[in-house]
Amino acid sequence: MKKFLNDPVNFVDEMLEGIYGAHKELTYVADDKRCMVTAKPKAGKVGIATGGGSGHLPLFLGYVGDGMLDGAAVGGVFQSPSAEQMYQVTKQIDQGAGVLYIYGNYSGDIINFDMAAELADLDGIQVKQVVGNDDVASSVVGEEHKRRGVAGIFFVYKAAGAAASEGLSLDEVTRIADKARSRTRTMGVALSSCVVPEIGHATFSIGEDEMEIGMGIHGEPGISRKKLAPADKVIDEMMERIFAETDYKQGDNVAVLVNGLGGTPMEELYILFRRVAQLLDQRGVKAKHVWVGEFATSMEMAGASVSVLHLDEELDRLVAAPANTPFFKHFAS
Amino acid sequence: MKKFLNDPVNFVDEMLEGIYGAHKELTYVADDKRCMVTAKPKAGKVGIATGGGSGHLPLFLGYVGDGMLDGAAVGGVFQSPSAEQMYQVTKQIDQGAGVLYIYGNYSGDIINFDMAAELADLDGIQVKQVVGNDDVASSVVGEEHKRRGVAGIFFVYKAAGAAASEGLSLDEVTRIADKARSRTRTMGVALSSCVVPEIGHATFSIGEDEMEIGMGIHGEPGISRKKLAPADKVIDEMMERIFAETDYKQGDNVAVLVNGLGGTPMEELYILFRRVAQLLDQRGVKAKHVWVGEFATSMEMAGASVSVLHLDEELDRLVAAPANTPFFKHFAS
Repeated sequence: MKKFLNDPVNFVDEMLEGIYGAHKELTYVADDKRCMVTAKPKAGKVGIATGGGSGHLPLFLGYVGDGMLDGAAVGGVFQSPSAEQMYQVTKQIDQGAGVLYIYGNYSGDIINFDMAAELADLDGIQVKQVVGNDDVASSVVGEEHKRRGVAGIFFVYKAAGAAASEGLSLDEVTRIADKARSRTRTMGVALSSCVVPEIGHATFSIGEDEMEIGMGIHGEPGISRKKLAPADKVIDEMMERIFAETDYKQGDNVAVLVNGLGGTPMEELYILFRRVAQLLDQRGVKAKHVWVGEFATSMEMAGASVSVLHLDEELDRLVAAPANTPFFKHFAS
Repeated sequence: MKKFLNDPVNFVDEMLEGIYGAHKELTYVADDKRCMVTAKPKAGKVGIATGGGSGHLPLFLGYVGDGMLDGAAVGGVFQSPSAEQMYQVTKQIDQGAGVLYIYGNYSGDIINFDMAAELADLDGIQVKQVVGNDDVASSVVGEEHKRRGVAGIFFVYKAAGAAASEGLSLDEVTRIADKARSRTRTMGVALSSCVVPEIGHATFSIGEDEMEIGMGIHGEPGISRKKLAPADKVIDEMMERIFAETDYKQGDNVAVLVNGLGGTPMEELYILFRRVAQLLDQRGVKAKHVWVGEFATSMEMAGASVSVLHLDEELDRLVAAPANTPFFKHFAS
């Protein structure tokens, strides 16, 4: 294990100390650094919270800020936060307009966030939930409810966050989040494992010349392991899966997110995006909004994912709205 | 070599195609993608250009945009661009107010940019130069002219870019860039090598439990190779070098950049920043502006650097000014 860390037991808490030290616009409640909220709440706005395991920066807490989220509860590395933590965040960020939870489709998170919603309900706080399931590789069409949530949740945050900032109601923000969710597809590929600090060895092994298409962001099995192909071939295979279950028509607009899993350099991500753009172009589909970088990682895992959001007029406007969070900044476009 | 690429010979050009596809605010001149300029030139403004080898994203071209730079010439991986390329960028970005070159202290770059400045001079374009040399590890005090330029050049771009955006003259922008340069110190540490695509094997070897303090961003030798220490100890050693040659006084303000070299996850960078903040705090020095992330990389190299800019009132204002480039966005603070 070759990492910058002190005692592995303190990995998450020391990381959080660093984040609070660097970003004064973030704070926490319940005397628990894992219960992060914005230091600049907006009166009357629908609150949006997320949460999940640590080890995925900038997921989850990196999107707490203007135009995105209001709070996030985080657990240990790859572990769900508790119901109590999510409940504490919920109480803090409710401004009387209710709270929307947006998180990924993992059983631990679902159990805990359901329980947090029940606790909030006893306090008279209305909570709605949208559960991200963008990972095409994790089930066949027709069983989308089994799919994991991965990097495409960024688009759900972005659209819902902009909607809440516009002052829309909880029902409306929920409708928009759910629309962004249902129109987002992601495919990933992993080249190397990461090491969970408290475990100290690789989560899985993979050959020096192998890739795994469809691997999850915690190392969940993908759909095929094979020899690493040229970048264009990798993207062709990934995008084929996305095209197979979407109905993009000539003239349609999409937003594209090419996400690095942590250990893959930006140069390679742009080489991947180049091919994504070619394939969209061949179909007459316009990549109207593009982000390339690290948006949902597995610490030092090498690999990448491509997420595509099929835009309509409403999502186009919301995705382009400004945002100012520690890890994601966007000027109005 | 485990990378997303096609033919290694096309690594840089395919990366550039991806970047132009994703960022429509960037364009190029002389029919050469390696001669990047902003698509939104500002009349009358002092132009700022940079350049250097590829493989360091977001260096160099990632900082071309509002509030930062106007153009960048890039070479092959870890190779200087040519004088002709820098000259083409210079001609394009000159708005009659002259052009400032800001680049790192490497002999190839110096030779080429000197020649580009001479070519520009023949066209009546005034060019000034500020050569970044922030890397404390690459020479002793008193021989700072031998020091390499590394991640701290970000602060020079930021201050000079803001000054040019305010409409200051070439002399003033140069004075400010030089002041930012002279007040910036960086120390780095590497944990692993990168692989230059056309070479196909690691630039250097380093043991599974070793770190090299002071290594350059192309794998240049550092000042000590030893067993990887706990994160706090690593930072203590790096900051000791910086403190030894600076005169921060209680109540002073600094800007801090904790930079990942490519393969190191954000979680670890925040653990490193946590310790930097503690050490500054012990001296009564305030980290008034903080950035943590990837700002100057060596592709997939694992490692990090810490840059500290000693602020004065002028630099404080300029560093906090807004910027909007593909890779660096900052709302006025």
